[in-house]
Amino acid sequence: MFALGIDIGGTSIKGGIVNNKGKLFDTFKMPVTKDENQDKTVKKLIRLVKRFLKEYHYKNEDIIGVGCGVPGIIDSTNGIVTFSGNLKWHNFALKRVLEEGLGFPVKITNDANAAALAEAKYGSGSKYKSFLMVTLGTGIGSGIFVDGKLYEGNLGKGAEFGHSLLVMDGRQCACGRKGCLEAYASATALVKDTRAMMEFHKDSLLWKVSEELGSVNARVPFIAAREGDKYAIELVDMYVKYLSEGLINYFNTFRPEAVILSGGIAEEGEFLISKIRNYCQTHDYGLKMCPSVDIVKSSVGYDSGKIGAAALFFD
Amino acid sequence: MFALGIDIGGTSIKGGIVNNKGKLFDTFKMPVTKDENQDKTVKKLIRLVKRFLKEYHYKNEDIIGVGCGVPGIIDSTNGIVTFSGNLKWHNFALKRVLEEGLGFPVKITNDANAAALAEAKYGSGSKYKSFLMVTLGTGIGSGIFVDGKLYEGNLGKGAEFGHSLLVMDGRQCACGRKGCLEAYASATALVKDTRAMMEFHKDSLLWKVSEELGSVNARVPFIAAREGDKYAIELVDMYVKYLSEGLINYFNTFRPEAVILSGGIAEEGEFLISKIRNYCQTHDYGLKMCPSVDIVKSSVGYDSGKIGAAALFFD
Repeated sequence: MFALGIDIGGTSIKGGIVNNKGKLFDTFKMPVTKDENQDKTVKKLIRLVKRFLKEYHYKNEDIIGVGCGVPGIIDSTNGIVTFSGNLKWHNFALKRVLEEGLGFPVKITNDANAAALAEAKYGSGSKYKSFLMVTLGTGIGSGIFVDGKLYEGNLGKGAEFGHSLLVMDGRQCACGRKGCLEAYASATALVKDTRAMMEFHKDSLLWKVSEELGSVNARVPFIAAREGDKYAIELVDMYVKYLSEGLINYFNTFRPEAVILSGGIAEEGEFLISKIRNYCQTHDYGLKMCPSVDIVKSSVGYDSGKIGAAALFFD
Repeated sequence: MFALGIDIGGTSIKGGIVNNKGKLFDTFKMPVTKDENQDKTVKKLIRLVKRFLKEYHYKNEDIIGVGCGVPGIIDSTNGIVTFSGNLKWHNFALKRVLEEGLGFPVKITNDANAAALAEAKYGSGSKYKSFLMVTLGTGIGSGIFVDGKLYEGNLGKGAEFGHSLLVMDGRQCACGRKGCLEAYASATALVKDTRAMMEFHKDSLLWKVSEELGSVNARVPFIAAREGDKYAIELVDMYVKYLSEGLINYFNTFRPEAVILSGGIAEEGEFLISKIRNYCQTHDYGLKMCPSVDIVKSSVGYDSGKIGAAALFFD
């Protein structure tokens, strides 16, 4: 049994054929042209998918449906992309347009939800009934599993964990609030903080590492911290503190069994995760009396968006 | 069909016979002696319940079970009071002790969960599938309904919404963290803030109101604010800001259909709730694109602890 999983992102659309064991077969990828309108982009996508299926000799009866993960606020019940800031899509009946264009049943969801679904069915999440998946990238995405089911909130509009406020009247967040977790613990925020730290400390190893990598990116403070640079260590410790306090808020409210970290920053692996674990263990409410929350890395990784989108058809 | 609902509090234990429509019949109440140990208190409770049932002519076959709400961290699966700060109970097998003493099946849960259950089955919550119930009292309690079911977290240890941090490195909270919602938006916090405001402003109406009520309690700033006292209005506005920011965090993560407010401070009714509604409507993430969250007052009220505890037996 196969489904087509499509992962729509701000810069590219990736897709692939996935079986009901979560195995990814043939794939495709197309760039998203900046400022192209939603109808045009999806028309291109439809043409590409048709060509792709033909080229790889898939027959219509092989595919039970097309699942699609989209960043932003998604009304999955009605198949509408309510708003996607990165894509500049607005009130777009994506499910209907794809169904008419492709002739398959279509389901859509938020991209972080799709990734969480892949993790729940085929990855680190498969041994938990309740977990939070947090994607640490340009922004902070999240997917929530409650009692073995993806929880999307009223009309599919929950799971914006990155937009919970941690610092009253704090940093301006893209969402309009001041002091959201995303404004402190996204890769974007970490890069900003790293730049600021570099301005203050010309002697920091951060300069050398950035030069070697060709840019100040979110890996820079981690590489320099591993080498013992004190300014980089400060940056990493601060990052760990903000992210962990956000996670503890979630623990105290929802006490999940686990948190699964994904996205670029999670690739720092145990160097980062052991610090987060340590912070949470020493700052959690009712510490000695509550079951601890496992904090682990995503195991599905790079393809989780496509696999999770396809998995919308594998109940 | 009847069950006995027991609401264990820091100063008294209240109980009553409840039918499966949520109607409360005969009731009892006993004081809790400060610093008495858990075994002794519950032995007294068992004697009282036996006398009560006899006095009101209930036969054993009339009662399908005894439900019990307890403040603190409760392992409802195993029937254990893991920790209750107010009661000073610790690792107490309450379910077993009550079953042996009373001869009925017993179920226990957190007191805020019991109140939320009453609200869900018989009150303001009955028209929602997903809501957060927040009890604004000495502390901040919470009960969570997800898809029509009480969500208690792993081993029953979630729903501590009051212990989510809003102010990084902020006020010391009783739970050990610094900057929790409870440290800003409980009645205890509001009384502290009112006292501080009074010290600074001897000309405030807050003095006259406190004198009339005989003490500085959480009603004082609301009464004075209704009269137009600018310092009291500042206090209420600040209270609304903290509570609302906490609620918006919850909205953005869980996007429930509703929030139901209960406890002493919720008795301020529309004067308070309209301000919270207004704050949330103007500060919510993706404001115009998300379904708004109803913010309403608890309708079951004072007896919700007993009724909800009994309702553990009415599935």
